[in-house]
Amino acid sequence: MAVYTPVSAEEFAALLARYNLGELRSAKGIAEGVENSNFLVETDRARFVLTLYERRVDEADLPFFLQLLDHLADRGLPVARGLRDRGGRQVQRVAGRLGCLFPFLPGVSPTKPTPAQAQAAGATLAALRREAAGFPGERANDLGPPGWAALAARCGERLDEIAPGLRAQVDEEVAFLLARWPAELPRGVIHADLFPDNVLMLGDTVTGVIDFYFACTEVFAYDLVVSHAAWCFALDGRGFDPAVSAALLDGYGALAIAERAALPLLARGACLRFLLTRAWDWLHTPADALVTRKDPLAYLRRLDFYAANEQWIAA
Amino acid sequence: MAVYTPVSAEEFAALLARYNLGELRSAKGIAEGVENSNFLVETDRARFVLTLYERRVDEADLPFFLQLLDHLADRGLPVARGLRDRGGRQVQRVAGRLGCLFPFLPGVSPTKPTPAQAQAAGATLAALRREAAGFPGERANDLGPPGWAALAARCGERLDEIAPGLRAQVDEEVAFLLARWPAELPRGVIHADLFPDNVLMLGDTVTGVIDFYFACTEVFAYDLVVSHAAWCFALDGRGFDPAVSAALLDGYGALAIAERAALPLLARGACLRFLLTRAWDWLHTPADALVTRKDPLAYLRRLDFYAANEQWIAA
Repeated sequence: MAVYTPVSAEEFAALLARYNLGELRSAKGIAEGVENSNFLVETDRARFVLTLYERRVDEADLPFFLQLLDHLADRGLPVARGLRDRGGRQVQRVAGRLGCLFPFLPGVSPTKPTPAQAQAAGATLAALRREAAGFPGERANDLGPPGWAALAARCGERLDEIAPGLRAQVDEEVAFLLARWPAELPRGVIHADLFPDNVLMLGDTVTGVIDFYFACTEVFAYDLVVSHAAWCFALDGRGFDPAVSAALLDGYGALAIAERAALPLLARGACLRFLLTRAWDWLHTPADALVTRKDPLAYLRRLDFYAANEQWIAA
Repeated sequence: MAVYTPVSAEEFAALLARYNLGELRSAKGIAEGVENSNFLVETDRARFVLTLYERRVDEADLPFFLQLLDHLADRGLPVARGLRDRGGRQVQRVAGRLGCLFPFLPGVSPTKPTPAQAQAAGATLAALRREAAGFPGERANDLGPPGWAALAARCGERLDEIAPGLRAQVDEEVAFLLARWPAELPRGVIHADLFPDNVLMLGDTVTGVIDFYFACTEVFAYDLVVSHAAWCFALDGRGFDPAVSAALLDGYGALAIAERAALPLLARGACLRFLLTRAWDWLHTPADALVTRKDPLAYLRRLDFYAANEQWIAA
């Protein structure tokens, strides 16, 4: 559920006047992305998405994100690049927020991905890796291994309000993973949040990859396990689907031997990351709020699965 | 802030397959309407809005709403009629909800209406009245005078949690209005919720009237005062704008003498209705929920204005 910064017709028109994109015809807040406000803006010539950056996006990171999108769009990946106004500016100030206007991408996010869709997503992840390898920008992963212990400590004893014993399990898992985390795998810029929500598809074709605002410099194979955990289970973390898993891995293609060996551990780390951020949000959103709190335990179930079934990678 | 029933790509495609409207290209939840889920659905041929009816819309009322829209669209008003599938059905079942597919209407809702926009809205209200007069359907206004005492009683002493003394003021106002409410004014079907949010405009032209789900049989002039209260003040109920007021009334055109005489009382009634429904929602939405509670006191301020300034109608 997105929170919207309200934008008036006059503000949309004033924004469009900075470009040569036609006259405003329609503008509607859309339920896309979790952290930012998004609007579908239509002129007499084309459609666009206006993203206004909300609390979790740091202004200092915007050049990294927009340069990454330029880099990937230049290389033919289905991403929307930030449009430049007549003065060459990508970042705009709209309704008191920083924002950027993007071309509209067709497609609908899969809700229950099929193997064919997972195969296409895996191929897209591999293409992102291939093309991001030449991108010079860097951004630390503040939700990566060095941040887990701190995030777990911030949740503290209240983790046991979510499930009895959760704090102890989290502390053990943090210690387990930090002691074994692979140091030498190939690294570069990854999407880091390629859930089905962030992939637009028509049939089995990926028509858009969106919401790069967790993109960061990380082990490349970590991007694959984030997506594996998101694509291969039911939302509640049950019902591992071996066919979707095999298709996603097949679409991604060859991995170095060390990468393949590390996947079970990386997958546990990805689950811990989403478990911790969801736990934090869970503990700081009232139970009776009219927003859907994402269940942290859905990622505990995935973590338990990966810990108990290291052979998933061979499935 | 709308709550969305999630709809999968497969469900959108299955819905479209019941019509001859082209192939699915995109579908996004949009922030439109308060009570229902709305999606902007695009095919290779056109764009549509899918409305899924949520809690406040009674299934038994859907034929009334859809027939009213047909009636108004047939007479050239800028409303979207419910599209009929190949079997002639307007009401569909989608994702476990009843829903209806509508053509997309261009335009953007004004956030700070100008006099010229208020004039156009007044003229649209008059056109709605003119064309609705011949509509045979009827629907009781369950938020009209007979419902106010019951709604006030349901809120009860907790009204004083919103503002000290509010309960006593509400009780007095209910008694005052019920004792004087005009019985013999011209009646018919009205929109009953024509806030700027529910009017789409391009420049000063009304391109769409939406969200007819409070439409009911009521005193025609009540529609004018609902809009007057919504259009002529700042959102917080302060800052009455005489120029916007005069333009709205001018756009609406001639009123019978008895209607004109009743406007101050009707306006107080409209304010009481929104004060009470907002108070109910306020008392039943947690203060720390991530939704914007609409301030009931914004309508108390309007009520106080109308009570103290009966000459507004002559302004």
